[in-house]
Amino acid sequence: MTDLTPPAVILDKPQMADNIGSVARVMANFGLSDLRLVAPRDGWPQDRAWATASGADWVLEGVRVFDTVAEAIADLNTVFATTARPRETRQPVRTPREASRVLYDDTASGLKAGLLFGGERAGLETTDIALTSGIVTIPIDPRHHSLNLAQAVAINAYEWRTLVLDAPPPKFRQGEPPASNDLLLGMYEHLETELDAGGFFHPPEKKRSMSQNLRVMLGRAAFTEQEVATFRGVIHALSKGRGRVLAKLAEKKARGE
Amino acid sequence: MTDLTPPAVILDKPQMADNIGSVARVMANFGLSDLRLVAPRDGWPQDRAWATASGADWVLEGVRVFDTVAEAIADLNTVFATTARPRETRQPVRTPREASRVLYDDTASGLKAGLLFGGERAGLETTDIALTSGIVTIPIDPRHHSLNLAQAVAINAYEWRTLVLDAPPPKFRQGEPPASNDLLLGMYEHLETELDAGGFFHPPEKKRSMSQNLRVMLGRAAFTEQEVATFRGVIHALSKGRGRVLAKLAEKKARGE
Repeated sequence: MTDLTPPAVILDKPQMADNIGSVARVMANFGLSDLRLVAPRDGWPQDRAWATASGADWVLEGVRVFDTVAEAIADLNTVFATTARPRETRQPVRTPREASRVLYDDTASGLKAGLLFGGERAGLETTDIALTSGIVTIPIDPRHHSLNLAQAVAINAYEWRTLVLDAPPPKFRQGEPPASNDLLLGMYEHLETELDAGGFFHPPEKKRSMSQNLRVMLGRAAFTEQEVATFRGVIHALSKGRGRVLAKLAEKKARGE
Repeated sequence: MTDLTPPAVILDKPQMADNIGSVARVMANFGLSDLRLVAPRDGWPQDRAWATASGADWVLEGVRVFDTVAEAIADLNTVFATTARPRETRQPVRTPREASRVLYDDTASGLKAGLLFGGERAGLETTDIALTSGIVTIPIDPRHHSLNLAQAVAINAYEWRTLVLDAPPPKFRQGEPPASNDLLLGMYEHLETELDAGGFFHPPEKKRSMSQNLRVMLGRAAFTEQEVATFRGVIHALSKGRGRVLAKLAEKKARGE
């Protein structure tokens, strides 16, 4: 993970301290920490914020409060305003993913970046949006477009972190590699021998294609060496274990016990 | 935008009705609507959920409640469990973006998909994770990894919607779809019953973890409905077929033939 300064989060006129705490929590989740409040309705600090921050105290303790959006973003170079797509705008409108890319490139070049969010009800004023480098619109379903403030921050912060990490977890397995083919072949042959003894291959001329189907379907699981051993244990237990039990019963019965 | 059935969201043992409401809200934001609850702590319905759903009432009104994860996902073909990356797992681990791609391709092929989330404190049980098609891990900062439930749903739902809006041509699955989860569960139970009879689970206190390993390793193969039937035939032939043969031999022997 590259050593970049993540974007600041600026909340314009937030109303609920709970939401400020939830924003702090989600910032911490995705590695952001610079939180700025513009004219919070109920002042600052607010105990309720700590209650919902779920331990992201360092974010809340670092909060700076400003009177206006202009002051809050004064030291930043690239700021995007997260808002619904305006009916008319000359500013570029980006998805969170596109915006992250710009923020990433800019901070990597030594610039300071920020994400601006409106208050719960009023949203952002056009004059404040105009101060920014552009608009970010989250692709919300228009039939239900009321997105919670912390969720809006979460989506953007997640996109930032995903881009910075840029190292998706390995596609399939960590640890053990799949077993070698000779081990698999031994397992298939063991299975087929026991199935033959159990009368599975019926009619006999179908044995070849039936065996092949079994190999294909089990092969997809890509057993490890350990799993091959486990599966051979399964074959053994099913074929011999049960057989021993039944055989003993039959013996007793035949002896008239 | 393609006309797809979005994934169901399954919450295992959710504790707070507020969170259930927040989940419904964010589902509506991103166009999801099928919400399922497994054993909600305080029962269902709960007024507080409607208070935080912010108008996403149709999601809450459509909620279905189940006793177990297995029942809740029985009709689904592809289910991902959202959880922290396990220290050890044999199941595939994907990012939300990679998972969305699979869910998109699968639903475009007519399969039913779901996203499973654990309760606020306990998270998901390993036995339930073993029932799914794989794990989704959100790239959280390890220094602050407590992600709010609704946020976890939001990130996944956002990725789903972003992908669907972009509407890349779906990669249709080749051949038969994977069997539904209830068929798989029946197959596992059949196997475990016969293995028990064959003395496989030794020592007995390990039965649980041994069964789980078997489910995970076989689960990776993603058997089709036909293959489930085939594998049940394998179990039957191994356990009963061989038993009958041995029993007959033993009978003859006992009779001195």
